[in-house]
Amino acid sequence: MSLAIGIDIGGTKVAGGLVRTDGSVVGRARRDTPHRSTSPNVVEDTIVEVVTELLAVADAAGDDVVAVGIGAAGFVARDRATVVFAPHLSWRDEPLRDNLQRRVRVPIAVDNDANAAVWAEWRFGAARGESNVVMVNLGTGIGGALMLDGKVVRGAFGIAGEFGHMQVVPGGQRCECGNKGCWEQYASGNALVREARSLMVAGSPLATDLLARAGGDPMALTGPMISDAARDGDPTATELFTEIGHWLGVGMANLAAALDPGLFVIGGGVSAAGDLLLDPARTMFRRTLTGRGYRPEARIVAASLGNDAGLIGAADLARGIREGDA
Amino acid sequence: MSLAIGIDIGGTKVAGGLVRTDGSVVGRARRDTPHRSTSPNVVEDTIVEVVTELLAVADAAGDDVVAVGIGAAGFVARDRATVVFAPHLSWRDEPLRDNLQRRVRVPIAVDNDANAAVWAEWRFGAARGESNVVMVNLGTGIGGALMLDGKVVRGAFGIAGEFGHMQVVPGGQRCECGNKGCWEQYASGNALVREARSLMVAGSPLATDLLARAGGDPMALTGPMISDAARDGDPTATELFTEIGHWLGVGMANLAAALDPGLFVIGGGVSAAGDLLLDPARTMFRRTLTGRGYRPEARIVAASLGNDAGLIGAADLARGIREGDA
Repeated sequence: MSLAIGIDIGGTKVAGGLVRTDGSVVGRARRDTPHRSTSPNVVEDTIVEVVTELLAVADAAGDDVVAVGIGAAGFVARDRATVVFAPHLSWRDEPLRDNLQRRVRVPIAVDNDANAAVWAEWRFGAARGESNVVMVNLGTGIGGALMLDGKVVRGAFGIAGEFGHMQVVPGGQRCECGNKGCWEQYASGNALVREARSLMVAGSPLATDLLARAGGDPMALTGPMISDAARDGDPTATELFTEIGHWLGVGMANLAAALDPGLFVIGGGVSAAGDLLLDPARTMFRRTLTGRGYRPEARIVAASLGNDAGLIGAADLARGIREGDA
Repeated sequence: MSLAIGIDIGGTKVAGGLVRTDGSVVGRARRDTPHRSTSPNVVEDTIVEVVTELLAVADAAGDDVVAVGIGAAGFVARDRATVVFAPHLSWRDEPLRDNLQRRVRVPIAVDNDANAAVWAEWRFGAARGESNVVMVNLGTGIGGALMLDGKVVRGAFGIAGEFGHMQVVPGGQRCECGNKGCWEQYASGNALVREARSLMVAGSPLATDLLARAGGDPMALTGPMISDAARDGDPTATELFTEIGHWLGVGMANLAAALDPGLFVIGGGVSAAGDLLLDPARTMFRRTLTGRGYRPEARIVAASLGNDAGLIGAADLARGIREGDA
């Protein structure tokens, strides 16, 4: 069996998998990493450990591994070898591929994690059959990727798809990127939790249910607690998802004006809320899409591969480089 | 000599030219058309007149015309034959290519006017040598087009590049498209004139110079009058360009976050103001680009082909279809 290894590097973990040509994952390995580790070497060592473990699994089963794909949360240059900047990983112009290739015998390719995810959803998931796709991943922030005519768009320098840092509110909420009013300050897990906490801190009676779920400590509140509350019918939690969803819809309408995709795929942890999030997003998208009524409209669906999208896509893209089709 | 005819259809004119393979224009014809003409046929008749006139010129010179390209201000479907919607031309799902092809012997292709312009600037103008280009045309509104890896991006339905209708101010100025806060309400010729008029109407002493140039009538004020005043040193006119330029910069930073182009080309009538507009735009772009200091930055230049970009690009794209490379 011919396998590729996919590695998904987040801010605090390295997750790897053995991926078949049909996108299925037949073996896994995972390590936690220190958050904002001071040395790039720590993460690189961890990647090598995970790859080595997966290679041993494949060897033991008599399977061949043809490529290793790395999906990294950061700016990856067009050469698919260098991480230009990764705020959560203390990488700056890091020659990641070459550093790893010296220690791993299988050919390696590096890509942005969201690029890997949109590729996976297109090949094996929610975007099958649609070659013009905008992917919006709602986690703590917003990650994004763009596929046009069946190709991942990387931009002139490899940094396309940073949708979360498009300004939607002039002078709005301060963002970690240094700007104000970035989209991810209004439509992300962080935004959801921030708004809920501000109600709690203000002592609003509307936050009674949420405060109880957080054990009385606003700082202990998490996104999944808000999802649970919304599913249990708490009107405040539902309203918070509606707000996030509305901002998601406004931002998608902006992207549709610019890019005219046939499909939006919404991934990331917050997307697990499903229609609590997507229904208000669809409503606002239809209400703010320019030319509405005079144009075909993009569909909006939830991603289907969940947390595996990054590693599946990284593996498949790396295999494609080997085979000359990606 | 092998020529292609390019036709640029705006809201009130049909301009045509005989275009050589090097992008030069060797013959011209032009007709005015009624604004928001009630019948699509009026514009189609006018196009046929202009094409016929140019074919006669070519025939007389013994030159061969291999293709006719139409650049239309409207949504053009991916088939490059149908105008889905053209607000200024009363076209709706208009089979423009086929209607014209019945009356013209040379093969015809239809494209969006901004798509034609970015192609022209890439082949013969300010974007030569850069394959990832965002074009922003500031006229009465904002027209836009996108080239990635040397291909014009049309989107799933052909309608990509409508940057002017990305929302930059929630609840902001009402736009003709029905939304509020669209970018073109803040960075366009209309925005420039609207802001100047509001000063005049308010009786602001800051508008004395502009009011004099408009003969005392706010409604008689035009964009070029404001450019002239700015060039003559009127501080209010200069400030108005600075404001428009700042919004231009903010919007470009948004597009750079999403698309990571190597180059922005600024065209359209307002771009004739040159650095009055582009300097504040560059300043704000650098100030609001996400990841600034950690990434390569796109250059921002003025378009170089002026009003000819649309017809040159339409001609060259149509020739490319004939020759299989566009």
